[in-house]
Amino acid sequence: MKEKQPQAGDKVKISTVKEEIEGTLLESYEPGIILIKLKSGYNIGIKKEDVVLLEREPVLSQKESKAPELKKIKQNPKLPNVDIIMTGGTISSRLDAETGAVKWLTSPEELLKFYPELLEICNIRKIKVPFMKASENMDYLDWQEIAKNCEESLNDKEISGVIITHGTDFLHYTSSALSFFLRDLNKPVVLTYAQRSSDRASSDAALNLQCAARAAISEIAEVMIVGHSGTNDDFCYALLGSKVKKLHSSRRDAFKPVNCKPIAKIFLDRIETITQFKRRNDGKVKLDLSFNNKIALIKFYPGMEPEIFEFLSGRYEGIVLELVGLGHLAIDEARRNLLAAIKKAIDNGMIVCAASQTIYGRLDPLVYSPGRKLIKTGIIFLEDMLAETAYVKLGFVLGKAKEQEKIKKLMLTNIAGELNSRLEE
Amino acid sequence: MKEKQPQAGDKVKISTVKEEIEGTLLESYEPGIILIKLKSGYNIGIKKEDVVLLEREPVLSQKESKAPELKKIKQNPKLPNVDIIMTGGTISSRLDAETGAVKWLTSPEELLKFYPELLEICNIRKIKVPFMKASENMDYLDWQEIAKNCEESLNDKEISGVIITHGTDFLHYTSSALSFFLRDLNKPVVLTYAQRSSDRASSDAALNLQCAARAAISEIAEVMIVGHSGTNDDFCYALLGSKVKKLHSSRRDAFKPVNCKPIAKIFLDRIETITQFKRRNDGKVKLDLSFNNKIALIKFYPGMEPEIFEFLSGRYEGIVLELVGLGHLAIDEARRNLLAAIKKAIDNGMIVCAASQTIYGRLDPLVYSPGRKLIKTGIIFLEDMLAETAYVKLGFVLGKAKEQEKIKKLMLTNIAGELNSRLEE
Repeated sequence: MKEKQPQAGDKVKISTVKEEIEGTLLESYEPGIILIKLKSGYNIGIKKEDVVLLEREPVLSQKESKAPELKKIKQNPKLPNVDIIMTGGTISSRLDAETGAVKWLTSPEELLKFYPELLEICNIRKIKVPFMKASENMDYLDWQEIAKNCEESLNDKEISGVIITHGTDFLHYTSSALSFFLRDLNKPVVLTYAQRSSDRASSDAALNLQCAARAAISEIAEVMIVGHSGTNDDFCYALLGSKVKKLHSSRRDAFKPVNCKPIAKIFLDRIETITQFKRRNDGKVKLDLSFNNKIALIKFYPGMEPEIFEFLSGRYEGIVLELVGLGHLAIDEARRNLLAAIKKAIDNGMIVCAASQTIYGRLDPLVYSPGRKLIKTGIIFLEDMLAETAYVKLGFVLGKAKEQEKIKKLMLTNIAGELNSRLEE
Repeated sequence: MKEKQPQAGDKVKISTVKEEIEGTLLESYEPGIILIKLKSGYNIGIKKEDVVLLEREPVLSQKESKAPELKKIKQNPKLPNVDIIMTGGTISSRLDAETGAVKWLTSPEELLKFYPELLEICNIRKIKVPFMKASENMDYLDWQEIAKNCEESLNDKEISGVIITHGTDFLHYTSSALSFFLRDLNKPVVLTYAQRSSDRASSDAALNLQCAARAAISEIAEVMIVGHSGTNDDFCYALLGSKVKKLHSSRRDAFKPVNCKPIAKIFLDRIETITQFKRRNDGKVKLDLSFNNKIALIKFYPGMEPEIFEFLSGRYEGIVLELVGLGHLAIDEARRNLLAAIKKAIDNGMIVCAASQTIYGRLDPLVYSPGRKLIKTGIIFLEDMLAETAYVKLGFVLGKAKEQEKIKKLMLTNIAGELNSRLEE
C-alpha cells in the first residue's frame, strides 16, 4: 500500500540488498545520499542506488480504537454490537490528493466517517487494528493474529458478530485459515473488502460494509466473505470462507463461490438464504491455531522437471500440487518421470496433496490408469477442495498430526465445509 | 490412458525406479516375478515389487491413415476436404467392455465409425496419427509435431481446414502453441475433444466433432478450440486458442474464453460469429517452431520463500510468475523479501514475466506502490495474458531473442490475440 513519499522527520524503514535499517529520515544535503538517524542516535548515510525499498512506518500499526474514542460518533444503543478488525487493504485506504498515491486511513474512526450508514445497522463497539497490511504480505502469523482478535470478540456476550476489513488479493487465504482456526463457531465472522479505495465514487466499500454489517448480526454462524454479487450496487453475496476464490483482478464481484452456491444474498434491508448454514448459538468459539509452515503450493505444467521435487523434498514437510483435470500429471518415462520423483519424495516422508488447477470440479483419479498409479504413490487427492484452501488446511493439519495415515484422514475429513460431497455445478 | 492389463505376448515397457525396459511379456511361473524377452533375445526377470509402471506399447503410434484406407467409408466428393490429426485423449478412446478400462481406439477409422455424421459435413481425406498421448504428457516437442502436421495439410490446396482431436487437460497449452507456431494462418485450425469417451451415451464427442468440422470448413482462419458451450447438446463455441482455459474437471463445457468473447457459436446447421476474426485466404501458412524449453511456471502463495528463486535462477532462462490481483507479491522485509530475490534472479539474466492468478482481469502494477517496485526489478507484466499462454509464449520468444529488451518487446507485442487491449468482462 502506497504511503506518500517519506519526508524528513518521518520514521522510515530502508532495505538495501544487504541489510534493513529503521530510523528517522533526515534532510540530506549530499546528492545521491539518504541520511538516517538510527534508534541508537547515530546517523548513517546510504547511497540511493543501494536502496531497494524506502518506506514510512505504518501509522496505524497495533493501534486499537475502543468505545470511548468511538463515542464521538453517534451510535444507537438499541442496535446490536459488532466489533471491526481492521487489517489493511484498499478498503482501509484512500487517495492522497497531494501525491496521487493510495495511502492508509489515518485513524480507525475514519472508516466510520466514510461509511456512516454502517451505524444504521449496528453499533461498532471496537475497531481493532492488529496490523495494517496489503493481504499479499500476510502469512499464517497474521491469520493467527486475526483469529485471536475474533475469538476475543466472539466470546464476548455483548457482541453479535465480527467484521474484518481486509485486502482482496489473499482474502480467500485468510477466510480459509479462520474457517479452520475458529472451532465450534458461535457467531458470524464476516470478511469484507473494497476493490476501489474508499474515497472514490466508484468504490464498492459502502455496499460491502453495510451488507457485511447485516451479515454480522444475522443468524449465520459461518466464516464468510461478503461482497458485491455483480457489477450493480444491488446486493452482496455471503460466500463460504473455505470455498471462495478471487477470480478477477479488478471487478467488484471478484470473489466467486467454487463448487458450491453462495450461502445467502444480502440486500440492504433483508437476507435471502440459499444454502444450509450453521446457526448462531450460545456456545463459545474455541481457538485452534495449529500450523506447520513447512509447506508449499506447486502448479504442474507441461515440461515440469522432476528435480523440483528433490528441491521441495529437502525443504518442506508437505506440498499441495495443482494437478490438471481429474488429477493428472506427466507420466512419460521417455521424457520425464514425475511419478517416480513424487514417489521418492513421499517415501522420504513428504506429504503430497493434490487439488485441480481447473478450479471448478472434482478430482477423480480412478477414471484413468495414470491416476490410479498416482494414488499408489500415496498422493492424497482432495476431491473438490480449492488449492488455496488445501494449502491452508495442510499447514493446519501438519500442525496437529505427524503420522501419514492420520494426516490423510484429517485432510479428507470435512472440517469447515471445504469438502463438498455433492458436486454443485 | 488405460490399456487393458498386458498379457503374455504383448510388447511392453516396464519402468522400475532404476531403469526402463522394453520387450515382450512372457508367461512367468515364478510368483512375484515378471518375465520379459528383450529385443536382444535374452530373457530377464524383474521383481513385481520393483515395477513402477508396466504398460503395453501404444498400438496406434506413428500410424497414418490415408485416403485409400478411408475409401471403405463412403464419402461425398462434393463436400470440402478436411484432414484430421489424431493425438490421443478421451475423444480417441473407448471403454473396454472386458476390463472396464478406457483404451485407445484401435484404428483411426474407428473414429469415423463412431461419428459417421461428420461425413455429412466434410470429406475426411487423411487421419494422421503423429502419436497417441494423454495431453498432460505432452510438451513442446509434441506441439511442434502437431504444428508440422498442420502446416502440411494447410498448405495443400485441396484441404479446407484441419481438425485436431486431443486430450482436454492441456489442450489449452497446445492451442496456445499452435497460435504462435503457425504464422500467417490461411485456414481454420480446430482443436476438439471429449470429456466422456466416445462409446458412452453421455459422450460430448458427437456434437464437438460435427461443430469442429463445420468450423474447419468455415471462413474463420484462427487456431480455435471448438466444444460444448453449455451442458445442453445445442451448440458449441469456437474459442480463440490463445485465450482459453480448462476451468472444470468434468463438465462438457469445461473450456471458457478468458478476457474475451467466443469467436462464434457453432450450431449443427449454421455459424453465428460474435467477435472479429482473421478470414480464410490464399496465402501459405509459415511454420515458426522457435522454442527454448528452459522455462518454468510458478504460482505465488502466502509464505513463499525467496530460496525458490535461487533454485529457479540456476536452472531456467525464464519463468512466468503467477502474481495475485493487479500484479502483487509479498514485499515484507520483516518476514521474507521476494522482491530482492527476484531482482537478483533478473540481474543474473533470468527473464521474469508476470500473469495474474485471478485468471480473469488485467494486471495493472501502477495502481499501488509495491507494483511500481516490482516493475523496477525488470519483471515483464503481461497485461491480460493467461499464465498458460504466457508460459508457451515465453518459450517461443526465448527461442528467438536473447536480449532482455527485445524479449520484453516481443512478450508485449500481440502475436496471436493473446493480448487484448480492451478488457472485455
